[in-house]
Amino acid sequence: MKLFTSVHDVPSIKQFVNDALALKANPYAHQGLGKNKTLGLVFMNPSLRTRLSTQKAALNLGMNVMVMNLDKEGWALETQDGVVMNGSTVEHIREAAAVMGQYCDILGLRSFPKLNNREEDYNEDFFTKFVKYCAIPVVSLESATRHPLQSFADIITIHETWDSLKVGANVKPKVVLAWAPHVKALPQAVPNSFAEWMCKAQAEGMIDFTVAQPEGYELSENFTPGAEITYNLEEALAGADYVYVKNWSSYKEYGKVLTYPDGWMMNNEKLKITNNAKVMHCLPVRRDLELSSEILDGPNSLVIHEAGNRLWSAQAVLKAMLEEL
Amino acid sequence: MKLFTSVHDVPSIKQFVNDALALKANPYAHQGLGKNKTLGLVFMNPSLRTRLSTQKAALNLGMNVMVMNLDKEGWALETQDGVVMNGSTVEHIREAAAVMGQYCDILGLRSFPKLNNREEDYNEDFFTKFVKYCAIPVVSLESATRHPLQSFADIITIHETWDSLKVGANVKPKVVLAWAPHVKALPQAVPNSFAEWMCKAQAEGMIDFTVAQPEGYELSENFTPGAEITYNLEEALAGADYVYVKNWSSYKEYGKVLTYPDGWMMNNEKLKITNNAKVMHCLPVRRDLELSSEILDGPNSLVIHEAGNRLWSAQAVLKAMLEEL
Amino acid sequence: MKLFTSVHDVPSIKQFVNDALALKANPYAHQGLGKNKTLGLVFMNPSLRTRLSTQKAALNLGMNVMVMNLDKEGWALETQDGVVMNGSTVEHIREAAAVMGQYCDILGLRSFPKLNNREEDYNEDFFTKFVKYCAIPVVSLESATRHPLQSFADIITIHETWDSLKVGANVKPKVVLAWAPHVKALPQAVPNSFAEWMCKAQAEGMIDFTVAQPEGYELSENFTPGAEITYNLEEALAGADYVYVKNWSSYKEYGKVLTYPDGWMMNNEKLKITNNAKVMHCLPVRRDLELSSEILDGPNSLVIHEAGNRLWSAQAVLKAMLEEL
Repeated sequence: MKLFTSVHDVPSIKQFVNDALALKANPYAHQGLGKNKTLGLVFMNPSLRTRLSTQKAALNLGMNVMVMNLDKEGWALETQDGVVMNGSTVEHIREAAAVMGQYCDILGLRSFPKLNNREEDYNEDFFTKFVKYCAIPVVSLESATRHPLQSFADIITIHETWDSLKVGANVKPKVVLAWAPHVKALPQAVPNSFAEWMCKAQAEGMIDFTVAQPEGYELSENFTPGAEITYNLEEALAGADYVYVKNWSSYKEYGKVLTYPDGWMMNNEKLKITNNAKVMHCLPVRRDLELSSEILDGPNSLVIHEAGNRLWSAQAVLKAMLEEL
Repeated sequence: MKLFTSVHDVPSIKQFVNDALALKANPYAHQGLGKNKTLGLVFMNPSLRTRLSTQKAALNLGMNVMVMNLDKEGWALETQDGVVMNGSTVEHIREAAAVMGQYCDILGLRSFPKLNNREEDYNEDFFTKFVKYCAIPVVSLESATRHPLQSFADIITIHETWDSLKVGANVKPKVVLAWAPHVKALPQAVPNSFAEWMCKAQAEGMIDFTVAQPEGYELSENFTPGAEITYNLEEALAGADYVYVKNWSSYKEYGKVLTYPDGWMMNNEKLKITNNAKVMHCLPVRRDLELSSEILDGPNSLVIHEAGNRLWSAQAVLKAMLEEL
Repeated sequence: MKLFTSVHDVPSIKQFVNDALALKANPYAHQGLGKNKTLGLVFMNPSLRTRLSTQKAALNLGMNVMVMNLDKEGWALETQDGVVMNGSTVEHIREAAAVMGQYCDILGLRSFPKLNNREEDYNEDFFTKFVKYCAIPVVSLESATRHPLQSFADIITIHETWDSLKVGANVKPKVVLAWAPHVKALPQAVPNSFAEWMCKAQAEGMIDFTVAQPEGYELSENFTPGAEITYNLEEALAGADYVYVKNWSSYKEYGKVLTYPDGWMMNNEKLKITNNAKVMHCLPVRRDLELSSEILDGPNSLVIHEAGNRLWSAQAVLKAMLEEL
């Protein structure tokens, strides 16, 4: 694997999930693979889960890790070509990325969208240029439009918990992505990415997938091929085995927080409609705004388990990259 | 050892000091113990000595270390339950701590008091919740009311230097904690903790302990059982073998800087009253405000030696935790 | 090697360059040397190339690395003696440096000039005191007046590329340091240091060295012994084999950005005057202000290669220090 920025970089989800679970069962079996290899983690935006889990994953594989909080430790990067750099940008992404490529074997990169200009964000301009100019393998630690390490951990969690229920290979869980309220305008990266992975998992016959959101909050259709889409949360929740709760800002009225009907916060009342569904969230979660405390502190929550699986998704990706270095 | 937040977690100071000195004599003897174990260091407040010494201690034991400056790299945590999180806090401590517990084997945590509300600070609410929700062993890197790694380093330093004087096991040093002036309102964590360790060391027959402070600056009695308490610095210094100089804000008029009589800065003039006492300070020290430069640059100062021993106190604690993982 | 702050710490450039190229050919051959040795990297100012390359160099040698961004993670240090510390400085450099010396085997230190007071900056007061009080070997990661790891990487790059042209040992390249425009007042550290290394390389018979700058931008003569100095860029570029492009503020009118004639930006037009010169820059570079994009993206640019060699300059220095620990 040379690049991990979306589910399109993964030939088979089933196989990749099994690889991750094999690492979870035996975390230190491949420490020779990473010897004298260096992972650089570059953050243009803050990170907690992603940094720690990816760092730990690399250590498990015997790699060295260098962390670079470019937003705080570095300086403003220029991304446009043909600009006379007499303003506030100190270094061009061409040089900055190329230099980091000199000192590392694999780079992880996080860069959030600005949520001002849809075309600019969905172009993934910053990310694409960084990948091009650093000239070494890159793992997305969340880009403007996707968060694939999170989505990979999510499908690992679903597969793992469903399997442990021993319901048989021919019964597929119903997975629902349910929009939830928030006070800030959040990116679509996590829901886009989750949808994309679930649609592929559905195509591989692993799950059935539904997305529920209020009007105006529809995701780009590029990320939901084959998904059932509904504006009716109750309808979506009926018979659900997994409910993935997440806020996002509007794609249509780009980056806006639109008004929405009451009743989109997930709570125990709504859980009754489901098939005693497990509840997931990528975290950080706003308690009692997106998701009720009663769920988070109760037996149906998978959020910590899911965060724990971030380690194995990262380790599976890094292992696949190390094998091709 | 599962928790290290105060001297109450230490069965025998004498034994623990000997463990630390054995590590100092042979720092790399236990590198197998930490193999594939990860220490997470979480700072809600800045750190120099604590971060470097604990990081180095972990490396000596073969551990991996991940540092998280949550105050700068992270986001605001909610600590109250039952709050609808529609304000400025981004993540609840329940999730944040639990997630960190997923990626680490041991966590170190630093969290200062706010000095506004005594009950809140002395409850150690943040610290206690973090310990509870992370669900793995925790080392205090200084909490609202205690700094046990510092105090442990302090007693190591006293034991080590007293022993080298070969005065015989039956002569006990007189140790004095002496309040000193400062321009800011500082926590009581260091003096509380020092007093608590010295009182236990006194109970174990290792030292005699006196605290001297101006009126209004008395520490909580919970931290000074068995100590001699005085408002008269000269009286305290008479015959002292060790003087531990430190400022703290008022416990009674909580967090306040009260007026105080002249003459509380430690200097060579005052040193003459002592038994040629060694002078200690946890650092950072305000020169010529808390403690005179002539002492800091002279032969009686132990401050650098003492800071060096932070390494061995941390290593002894981590070793004790690794042995029970 | 106990100290690396300038070319004066290097007995023979030729030998040191060969040491670095041997490491480049065989990066992991000396991992036993750094076992259980700790490098502390202390930054008073931001860093990208320097931190990553030095960290990687230390890892290649088997060392542990602890990074300390004192400007962001720490607090204000007092450097003057005899000051009552009742102001905003929290710790004296005497204690701060001494404490770091307790936890590390080698320290790297970056500290920029303030560009207000020439004597103060050129005294290297902060740096000299840090070296004195930490009491362990120190590598400069750029000081007020020099950036020796950069200059060492520069001469490695020149030697390496010239050698690969196989022009014969008796033909020496003409190296030109060419001032370039900028919008900010930059330190003289990089050009001072480059000049100093090139003058010594010239004395060792490796190169011929010329400096070109507008009037008012002359470097201190202490850094340019034996160099050809000119105000005429075209004259300097005639027959040049290497052009090192760099802005700096005035040394004479200290720290000022003076007016200068047009035509000091390096571009393809000017490259025609040269002997198809290779173009160098320490980075970060302001595109189309200091140096044209056409050069940076064309075959004559060495800037990324040069940045890559920062790794080997750092590794050669650390290796030389480890050998004398």
